[in-house]
Amino acid sequence: MVQVRNSILEKWDMQEISCKGHTEGNPFTDYDIKGTFSHPQESLTVDGFYDGNGIYKVRFMPSFTGTYTYRIFGSFSTQAYEGTFQVTEATGENHGPVRVCNTYHFAYEDGTPHYSLGTTCYVWELQDEKLQEKTLETLKNSAFNKIRFCIFPKHYDYNLHEPISYPYEGMPVDSSLLTKDNFMEYMGKSEGNEWDFTRFHVGHFQHIDSCIEKLRDMGIEADLIMMHPYDRWGFSQMKPEDDELYWKYILARFSAYRNVWWSLANEYDLLAKKSIKDWERMAKTICEKDPYHHLRSIHHCITMYDHTRPWITHCSIQRTDVYKCAELVDQYRIQYRKPVVLDEIAYEGNIQHGWGNISGKELVRRFWEAACRGGYAGHGETYMHPQDILWWSHGGELHGESPERLAFLLKILKETPGYGLRYKTDAAWDEVAAVPDSLFLQNDYMLIYYGFNRPSFRDYYIDDVTEYEVEVIDTWEMTIEKIGTFKGKFRVPLPGKEYIAVRVRKI
Amino acid sequence: MVQVRNSILEKWDMQEISCKGHTEGNPFTDYDIKGTFSHPQESLTVDGFYDGNGIYKVRFMPSFTGTYTYRIFGSFSTQAYEGTFQVTEATGENHGPVRVCNTYHFAYEDGTPHYSLGTTCYVWELQDEKLQEKTLETLKNSAFNKIRFCIFPKHYDYNLHEPISYPYEGMPVDSSLLTKDNFMEYMGKSEGNEWDFTRFHVGHFQHIDSCIEKLRDMGIEADLIMMHPYDRWGFSQMKPEDDELYWKYILARFSAYRNVWWSLANEYDLLAKKSIKDWERMAKTICEKDPYHHLRSIHHCITMYDHTRPWITHCSIQRTDVYKCAELVDQYRIQYRKPVVLDEIAYEGNIQHGWGNISGKELVRRFWEAACRGGYAGHGETYMHPQDILWWSHGGELHGESPERLAFLLKILKETPGYGLRYKTDAAWDEVAAVPDSLFLQNDYMLIYYGFNRPSFRDYYIDDVTEYEVEVIDTWEMTIEKIGTFKGKFRVPLPGKEYIAVRVRKI
Repeated sequence: MVQVRNSILEKWDMQEISCKGHTEGNPFTDYDIKGTFSHPQESLTVDGFYDGNGIYKVRFMPSFTGTYTYRIFGSFSTQAYEGTFQVTEATGENHGPVRVCNTYHFAYEDGTPHYSLGTTCYVWELQDEKLQEKTLETLKNSAFNKIRFCIFPKHYDYNLHEPISYPYEGMPVDSSLLTKDNFMEYMGKSEGNEWDFTRFHVGHFQHIDSCIEKLRDMGIEADLIMMHPYDRWGFSQMKPEDDELYWKYILARFSAYRNVWWSLANEYDLLAKKSIKDWERMAKTICEKDPYHHLRSIHHCITMYDHTRPWITHCSIQRTDVYKCAELVDQYRIQYRKPVVLDEIAYEGNIQHGWGNISGKELVRRFWEAACRGGYAGHGETYMHPQDILWWSHGGELHGESPERLAFLLKILKETPGYGLRYKTDAAWDEVAAVPDSLFLQNDYMLIYYGFNRPSFRDYYIDDVTEYEVEVIDTWEMTIEKIGTFKGKFRVPLPGKEYIAVRVRKI
Repeated sequence: MVQVRNSILEKWDMQEISCKGHTEGNPFTDYDIKGTFSHPQESLTVDGFYDGNGIYKVRFMPSFTGTYTYRIFGSFSTQAYEGTFQVTEATGENHGPVRVCNTYHFAYEDGTPHYSLGTTCYVWELQDEKLQEKTLETLKNSAFNKIRFCIFPKHYDYNLHEPISYPYEGMPVDSSLLTKDNFMEYMGKSEGNEWDFTRFHVGHFQHIDSCIEKLRDMGIEADLIMMHPYDRWGFSQMKPEDDELYWKYILARFSAYRNVWWSLANEYDLLAKKSIKDWERMAKTICEKDPYHHLRSIHHCITMYDHTRPWITHCSIQRTDVYKCAELVDQYRIQYRKPVVLDEIAYEGNIQHGWGNISGKELVRRFWEAACRGGYAGHGETYMHPQDILWWSHGGELHGESPERLAFLLKILKETPGYGLRYKTDAAWDEVAAVPDSLFLQNDYMLIYYGFNRPSFRDYYIDDVTEYEVEVIDTWEMTIEKIGTFKGKFRVPLPGKEYIAVRVRKI
């Protein structure tokens, strides 16, 4: 009979059904397993996957409370499996998966707003255990609610050592002669590797399961980067049928985690062997095989993907100009009509690369610009380190000045009415004024950001009758000073320094 | 007989011939006066002007050494005037007028490079005498070699009081009820003024003569703003025939000063009563009436003028984007094929207006960007002041952090080979690398600027054989550190902070 690990679970938690099955031949390709999960309000049939040692698994995320029945079937076994389980209300920080809300913003399925505050640690989960623990500890003490990381290991400057595991059975290319000076010669090559792309190394994926779970339990979204070009193992140039097997495996395995987002690629346009046709095919697979409709995006290097494609739920943008990026959020919104997430706008740090050496002040400025223009920026950190442990790729500890200021911004965002902000197009040219992205709320609240400008005062006028409470926010010093209540025309004294915002709230 | 103030003068100094003439009727319009100045290598006929008290003047700037003869004629008098004078070689800081040199740069007529380092004090010369003296003292102790200022007085925020003089005979509008709160109601209006636009107030222009002379003697170019929209007196909406009289008067009066530049307008597009046709007509007048071909430009607010117009010698640009301006210099060069002077890129200060409240650091960063992209930026300062004396309009003292750093930049520019720099288009995307704007010199020198990026080191490669001396420049701290000599591939350690440049010079 069927083994159910949790016969009672919360809504949006994961139900996993494990079944013994055939081990002859190649269990990853020779057999199939599916599960149908039924409840008066939903019935879904989902794919399962082989998890090694003769164990096949089907995972499911229930969206309703009450009794679910299920049936497991497929060629994996001659036996039929059936059972029931109970789903209770979500509790604590379980708000369900994040959805697009109100065109440009996010909310959890239970309606709680989600103000995206992401960070990037490309392969934190493939570092040694001690470093992983440190990363999780750092995340726990941070305000980040999303982390971008890769399923495949990363090969690049500062990323030369072997990962703790590989996704396939086989042997990686010999890296004993690899150095900081010759790593580009290995880049995007597959020679010297011996992989069986039809046999997954289940330990690699079991480990990622546990990472997704740990993130989920901290309230952090796992923005999974499925493919990327920073590769010496040939994972960026597999054949379409290998890609397809990979995607289906990932989808069967990870879809039932409520905190998963799908990032089809990091810098899709640098994968020389992939065409738009390939990306669209993979996107189609996700749409077909993820029954929970997790958020889907794709990230570029030079040429932005067409974010109007229907399968894309939100823009995942890398800056395309050294000087302007967050400042373009309101334009991107008009262009793409989706939430704008700037996943890469240069990292706080001091390495030699221009994408990784801006100041904490400049990074925080970009976050505020993005927020007040109705979008969301992403963090990363790249400080030189004696052991080359850079948060951006390895995790570990944070050394920068931006994280606590980003937590402060998140606090401010959580205090906005509605689900997010929009740029006030009729505001003065020399301020970035944001109002709630809602017709009903737009006169109740205003957040005006002055960035690198340093006014000593500003004059405001909203209307003649409404009373507003006005506060001056020092976004760098993280102070909020109440100035008073005003109506009609009013003047607000300001400190004449950079990075000041003014918050105006209807009383 | 003729009165000659200096019968011996230096090349490019000014020769002025004063003659008594008719005083009946309106001497400004009823009579004409011209002078023909002859030398074996040039013969020019120029207009003179009426300077009040029965005195008519003809001014001339000789371009050659030796004996000049002249003849003064016209309806101003029944008498004929003739004479000779001697022209000697230029000495000291007299290098002649500034010319466009090598398409994108400037040089004085004697071939000395001119790296434009301008500042803006719109109506410094119309403030009280004590303040003017302070301005001149400040300029003397600064590195600025150009100053933009207006012939007409200025009406705007912080500019409400009466000027020390007006350009015409008559009465200005009553300003007794004018306040900081209602000044916009007066803007661009002419009601309440009583001017005779056919009778210049010569004292106003005699004073500007003396200012141009004082600037000349300090080696500072006088970038004369002929028209502007910040007006409550109707000077921005005179009739075409009044404009024509004004232009001819100005041209006859000021052309013979070697340090004059013509700026047709500040923010031409805000003069509601003027069309492109008007500006082109005025430009034609300048070309016809300035026999010395001083530099000519026109400055905009929203809509850039077509700087490809043949009469425009160099672009005079105001930033059109809050975030990018100096960063566009290399594009403007391609677009306009002329020297790019960013006369307005926001000022160092802390007033309420976004055009006047950036930090010294940000202003200096913009200057370096402009310089390394082959152009020239302009300074201004707008710090709050108890008596509303802001350098930007009134002159006085400088309070900011940028001027000494701009002097440091000028020193660096004076040490470049050739006449100026160009952006090295094949440099890395994350650095602004400049080389001499000369085929012969471009491999001899490189200046690489990192702006807000903070690399801890950078790798360079020019060729395998040439030896280069490498220095690290802290553009903010104004230090230059010799790193060593290198050839082939080499790595330069950098301090991992903002505003660093690297100078590479062939040994």
